[in-house]
Amino acid sequence: MRPALLALLVAAAVAPALAVSADDTPKPKTTQELLDASQASDWRTLDPANTLYLDLATGRVVIELAPDFAPAHVANIRTLAHEGYWNGMSINRSQDNFVVQWGDPAEEGQPRKPLGSAQAQLPAEFERKADGLGFHPLPDKDGWAPQVGFAAGFPAARDPGAGQAWLAHCYGAVGAGRDMAADSSDGTELYVVDGQSPRQLDRNITLVGRVVDGMELLSVLPRGTGPLGFYEDPAQRVPIRAIRLAADVPEAERVKLEVLRNDTPLFDAVVESRRNRRDDWYKRPAGHIDLCNITVPTRVPPASPAP
Amino acid sequence: MRPALLALLVAAAVAPALAVSADDTPKPKTTQELLDASQASDWRTLDPANTLYLDLATGRVVIELAPDFAPAHVANIRTLAHEGYWNGMSINRSQDNFVVQWGDPAEEGQPRKPLGSAQAQLPAEFERKADGLGFHPLPDKDGWAPQVGFAAGFPAARDPGAGQAWLAHCYGAVGAGRDMAADSSDGTELYVVDGQSPRQLDRNITLVGRVVDGMELLSVLPRGTGPLGFYEDPAQRVPIRAIRLAADVPEAERVKLEVLRNDTPLFDAVVESRRNRRDDWYKRPAGHIDLCNITVPTRVPPASPAP
Repeated sequence: MRPALLALLVAAAVAPALAVSADDTPKPKTTQELLDASQASDWRTLDPANTLYLDLATGRVVIELAPDFAPAHVANIRTLAHEGYWNGMSINRSQDNFVVQWGDPAEEGQPRKPLGSAQAQLPAEFERKADGLGFHPLPDKDGWAPQVGFAAGFPAARDPGAGQAWLAHCYGAVGAGRDMAADSSDGTELYVVDGQSPRQLDRNITLVGRVVDGMELLSVLPRGTGPLGFYEDPAQRVPIRAIRLAADVPEAERVKLEVLRNDTPLFDAVVESRRNRRDDWYKRPAGHIDLCNITVPTRVPPASPAP
Repeated sequence: MRPALLALLVAAAVAPALAVSADDTPKPKTTQELLDASQASDWRTLDPANTLYLDLATGRVVIELAPDFAPAHVANIRTLAHEGYWNGMSINRSQDNFVVQWGDPAEEGQPRKPLGSAQAQLPAEFERKADGLGFHPLPDKDGWAPQVGFAAGFPAARDPGAGQAWLAHCYGAVGAGRDMAADSSDGTELYVVDGQSPRQLDRNITLVGRVVDGMELLSVLPRGTGPLGFYEDPAQRVPIRAIRLAADVPEAERVKLEVLRNDTPLFDAVVESRRNRRDDWYKRPAGHIDLCNITVPTRVPPASPAP
């Protein structure tokens, strides 16, 4: 169904797997070729205890939580999900090139839904000690942080001098909305980045995880016309059927999804294939990539071979 | 209508204009305060001869063309618009975190709409001589180019050593799709960036302008499920009512819009207010900004005072 002349912007994928250039030097593999040659050990499954399913009328958004970075918030979010806190609530905000956000739509001064067993007060979790955290740095410099790379499966940053690490606000990052006080987030208000990475928020608000599947269900939501992209008319709010922990969902109903590990030679090769695009379409490989330009591949795991 | 506890992510705008800190040092102005104090000379109007209106059922997208960077493509696009080339065509592609794209939906091998007076063959216009181009650099380093800043109203990059300058693929950038050959774009297939800035495309494809208003009409389009985000079912394509040059539209029906100039002390102050957020919400100003994080403000010009 591809219209004529629209190859434009076509990436990799088209070059044969063993292509050689005129001088018989093997061409560097494209991203797709690298993934096609991946081993089972290059992939990881999501921990159901740290995976949220956000179910909308249009489908399911899968969120991986980051207990290594925001343990108190993640614990609270797990409790809130387990007790059905968000079920029947709504996405209340969609600001173009920035975020969507959901939570209790109660107006200022109106009673809010009780938190159940969840904590009403949490510490700010803007950063953590770098000690004890596996950190896989990228080769390129970053303007926002001394180092960037991946840690515990998430795009992250590190300051070796200060010994601190933190999650980065890339596309799909999930954070806990707060008020003016640094410690005013309780995990009930969650936002998802769906525009140019707003890295100025790094270390100013607690990130709690990342959307690993279903971003396109959030990014297409009509933009709100109120201040900050809030829907002005309550009828515009987008109903949330349920937000559940994967662990609370019967195994047969869970999403089958694997995420590419970030601490392997294959991952380094994938990053390099994005730093320098080698397919025939690109005339000038960039020789650089920003942290938030790296999309971590996912896949439906191949069926087990018959015994 | 703002729900309770949702102040989160609130930017500037709330601090009073003449706020002073405890030690009586005036606080740096926020972006909003700077804009509120702007003069008429800080703003510019769009040239109707280089402005496109893309009219959808949901509203109007306003595109500023960049003849200083892509003169041949812009000339062709002006001809195409003047002759109604795209009227009744459709947006055929929407790939999440990347681009939307429109043009002739003709399938591979089917006849395409005649180009009228437009040229069938154009040169690649990936970059231009930096000489003769006003370039207003940003203070921060960039990973993709030796220098970044604004030129002729557009986010751009420059290599002083090579004496070249080019437009940058930021959110809202409009480009001319091409096939494998560098000079295979004719301006009929246009794409708009609506995700994390794909700067790896810089100098690999011809950018022709930028959306200055109405991005939210494009960014919410359902994502296509075919390869590269093409709509698999022709019924999913989004009809284009018309694409016209503003100069071809009666003056009374034109969009009243001014864009903040990029070559003024006020613009430098606005950029600084984004590099270091000074409102009370931010606990740690970043001291940095990426080119593509700078949203160039627009406004409806104030009504002229009565004579």
